[in-house]
Amino acid sequence: MGESYGRWQIGDTDDAQLMEFITSANIATGFHASDPNLMDQTVRMAVEHGIGVGAHPGYNDLQGFGRRKIDGTAKELVNDIIYQVGALREFTRRHGGILQHVKPHGALYMEMAVNAELSHLFVDYMRTAAPNVSIFCMAGSVTEEIAVEAGVPVIREFFADRDYGEDGQIVFTRSVGHLDPEALAARAVRACKQGKVTAVTGRDVDIPFESICFHSDTPGALAIAKALREALIAAGIRISPVSEIINEKIRRTA
Amino acid sequence: MGESYGRWQIGDTDDAQLMEFITSANIATGFHASDPNLMDQTVRMAVEHGIGVGAHPGYNDLQGFGRRKIDGTAKELVNDIIYQVGALREFTRRHGGILQHVKPHGALYMEMAVNAELSHLFVDYMRTAAPNVSIFCMAGSVTEEIAVEAGVPVIREFFADRDYGEDGQIVFTRSVGHLDPEALAARAVRACKQGKVTAVTGRDVDIPFESICFHSDTPGALAIAKALREALIAAGIRISPVSEIINEKIRRTA
Amino acid sequence: MGESYGRWQIGDTDDAQLMEFITSANIATGFHASDPNLMDQTVRMAVEHGIGVGAHPGYNDLQGFGRRKIDGTAKELVNDIIYQVGALREFTRRHGGILQHVKPHGALYMEMAVNAELSHLFVDYMRTAAPNVSIFCMAGSVTEEIAVEAGVPVIREFFADRDYGEDGQIVFTRSVGHLDPEALAARAVRACKQGKVTAVTGRDVDIPFESICFHSDTPGALAIAKALREALIAAGIRISPVSEIINEKIRRTA
Amino acid sequence: MGESYGRWQIGDTDDAQLMEFITSANIATGFHASDPNLMDQTVRMAVEHGIGVGAHPGYNDLQGFGRRKIDGTAKELVNDIIYQVGALREFTRRHGGILQHVKPHGALYMEMAVNAELSHLFVDYMRTAAPNVSIFCMAGSVTEEIAVEAGVPVIREFFADRDYGEDGQIVFTRSVGHLDPEALAARAVRACKQGKVTAVTGRDVDIPFESICFHSDTPGALAIAKALREALIAAGIRISPVSEIINEKIRRTA
Repeated sequence: MGESYGRWQIGDTDDAQLMEFITSANIATGFHASDPNLMDQTVRMAVEHGIGVGAHPGYNDLQGFGRRKIDGTAKELVNDIIYQVGALREFTRRHGGILQHVKPHGALYMEMAVNAELSHLFVDYMRTAAPNVSIFCMAGSVTEEIAVEAGVPVIREFFADRDYGEDGQIVFTRSVGHLDPEALAARAVRACKQGKVTAVTGRDVDIPFESICFHSDTPGALAIAKALREALIAAGIRISPVSEIINEKIRRTA
Repeated sequence: MGESYGRWQIGDTDDAQLMEFITSANIATGFHASDPNLMDQTVRMAVEHGIGVGAHPGYNDLQGFGRRKIDGTAKELVNDIIYQVGALREFTRRHGGILQHVKPHGALYMEMAVNAELSHLFVDYMRTAAPNVSIFCMAGSVTEEIAVEAGVPVIREFFADRDYGEDGQIVFTRSVGHLDPEALAARAVRACKQGKVTAVTGRDVDIPFESICFHSDTPGALAIAKALREALIAAGIRISPVSEIINEKIRRTA
Repeated sequence: MGESYGRWQIGDTDDAQLMEFITSANIATGFHASDPNLMDQTVRMAVEHGIGVGAHPGYNDLQGFGRRKIDGTAKELVNDIIYQVGALREFTRRHGGILQHVKPHGALYMEMAVNAELSHLFVDYMRTAAPNVSIFCMAGSVTEEIAVEAGVPVIREFFADRDYGEDGQIVFTRSVGHLDPEALAARAVRACKQGKVTAVTGRDVDIPFESICFHSDTPGALAIAKALREALIAAGIRISPVSEIINEKIRRTA
Repeated sequence: MGESYGRWQIGDTDDAQLMEFITSANIATGFHASDPNLMDQTVRMAVEHGIGVGAHPGYNDLQGFGRRKIDGTAKELVNDIIYQVGALREFTRRHGGILQHVKPHGALYMEMAVNAELSHLFVDYMRTAAPNVSIFCMAGSVTEEIAVEAGVPVIREFFADRDYGEDGQIVFTRSVGHLDPEALAARAVRACKQGKVTAVTGRDVDIPFESICFHSDTPGALAIAKALREALIAAGIRISPVSEIINEKIRRTA
């Protein structure tokens, strides 16, 4: 969320309306989208709505919206992340909230998922400087493995508005067209109930997760948010804040 | 400090060497200079040297090195500051330090000094989100007045390498040439002893302060640092960390 | 025109539709808005529609949309202009068109209007490096005076969607709300017929001009374009390309 | 050349001094280095020295100095190039010179060398919008092949300060340390005389070229420039401007 920039808008969706339907927000941190004014405003809204605030650091590429990989070193990229997380955390502090999670954005999220050196540096930073803050990532990613090993709380995501490959990872794309909210919601409910999603090849893959992600720049994001929430509730799936999920995970591990 | 950028260098001075001579550092935060890699490195060095870490947020203008005023609203400018302070504070946390102070940079410092709306927003942010962090400013500035009124700890600065006007404020300039370290140190000692500095008009003005500032991009900054330190010690002036000065101020007020 | 950026949109108006109603376009050049991809696309459209291509260089401030003054020197600002004009001219050449005019954007246009040193440097650049390219400016501005003196072709503008002061210059604003297209068109027709506009003080001022400007980021820009064109035609006012106006001016002067 | 930025310097070398030793300059165009003021100054110097002016467009990544690949589409990257070439060409026109060549910079040069879609778009742009302007590239690169096929004049380069692989292409690196000017000059003379260079594997590879490139940010660039020029002259190798080389190539082809 908060992915407009300066005088420019993105998507057809008002963040304030979206906040009625979600429990956690990935808030852009100024490198791939947003600016300090919008961060101030988005964090304030999220805190007021009681929504978990997540920092959403991306590649330093406004023009490419963080969806073009930049060949930085792992050290450079994690420093970019620390910078952005700190900036967002300061607005969260300013508005009396606390940082719930960090989720790298776009092409940086995908790079993190396969880059062990980068995931190690990132997890090490989180462990030492943000000890009770969760990492959002994909099940089966390198990031998940390294974070779990380091004892950093992890929330695995299901992507409602992205295609899946047979490896259980999403098919990365720089933008998507209009999607059918009902079909998308049905797919998410099935993923919750059966732990399965149909890959682009037609084959079903296992998909373990604790959180459902969709993008506010996907056309019709508000309709998607409503359809998702209604379908989940209709299917008897309880929607919980991340804190409860983390506590439940800790309880189960103990 | 930390005012290089990417592969580029500024000034003729190595920050590591400068750190032998100072007690507090104003560390650039990426808008007028620096980048996340250099912030990481500079903060780590400062923490290792036991030097007070200060965030040095500036105008968002790398090309102009933050020394060109940008006509943003007070709200925009303070959001730029919050963003940058948060980024620097995260690196400080990462390296086991704490943020000692915030000092706006260059043209933003000068604007803050005369802009009551901006100073109010800035001080309000500091009071609520950074309660034990000091503000560095000029004696007689609007910033000082508002910060003192709000109960935010203030450190007033004497600028060793800048000219003064009769109003007791520095004459702003985008860059200076080579200065004589000995003459500059003698002027600083006089300012400490007598609380006076000679303005560009030739007249003496009163100049109350607790900290002496010089710029790492001033040619010969290392020689200036040495000359200053030696002259202060030779004159029997005790150089204390900011924490002691703040405690002393609180004691005197009580 | 072409004032979106990366994946972001501005305004509610499609540039392709607007091009049906205009004879000249001020095309953003990447500093206050736009990017090379959008410049490529916008210039191509303008050339295909036979619309006069104008470079619209602005302050280097994407976040502020070039509507915040930056205190650069005249030399710095004119170099920023040369850079941007060259970039746009290359896309024009690429699409088989020629550059018709240059019009500084936003706060830079307003600064140029009152800054003699900047106007001198700008006009000198235009005279030597872009000899048959017109300058768009306000009647009564310093820019007009200096350009006329230097023999650089000048087109004076009437701003359809901005307020006027008693000095015959527009009241600068960072954004406007929704305006009534019919009232705005009637005001423009009166300006054409009588050479007068009512200032914000209520008094009429003389307003000589050859071109009518409106902003594509003004809400309802397409309706404004239609209303303007229809009202002008209904009032029997001939809409000519800039080349004819310049030729007519030269004829009259000779 | 012209690869400083704002108030920052790069390398230990003064461009004005370097210009005594070269016949062509690759001048940075603001995306990986430089800014409009430095472009103005560098182009003016080059024109005054009678040195062939080349545009040196790079990835839009100041922090990474254009030496980090960015995964843009071919269309995006060539639009970035058109933008930058136009900007530099405008300064060249401003100073009464003409654009001699275009050479992509750093990681963009390496990408161009292997990316047929990008090379096609680039060559097509050069052919249509910059018909008498040469392309600088590596022998054996995709760029060379496509440019030759399209009839765009090509100058092949030997890199004096970079290692070679067995494929006859340079080993890309983000920076180099100090190199021995004499050894480097001897290697260049051998390359001129025998058309061979020793790859990092120890094996000799053929290396056809018409131009010798070295980097102004390589430590000791001035000493390298002197050593190269002296060694070439001592070896009886004639140093010609690019125009003569192109004419000679045309003559030979005819």
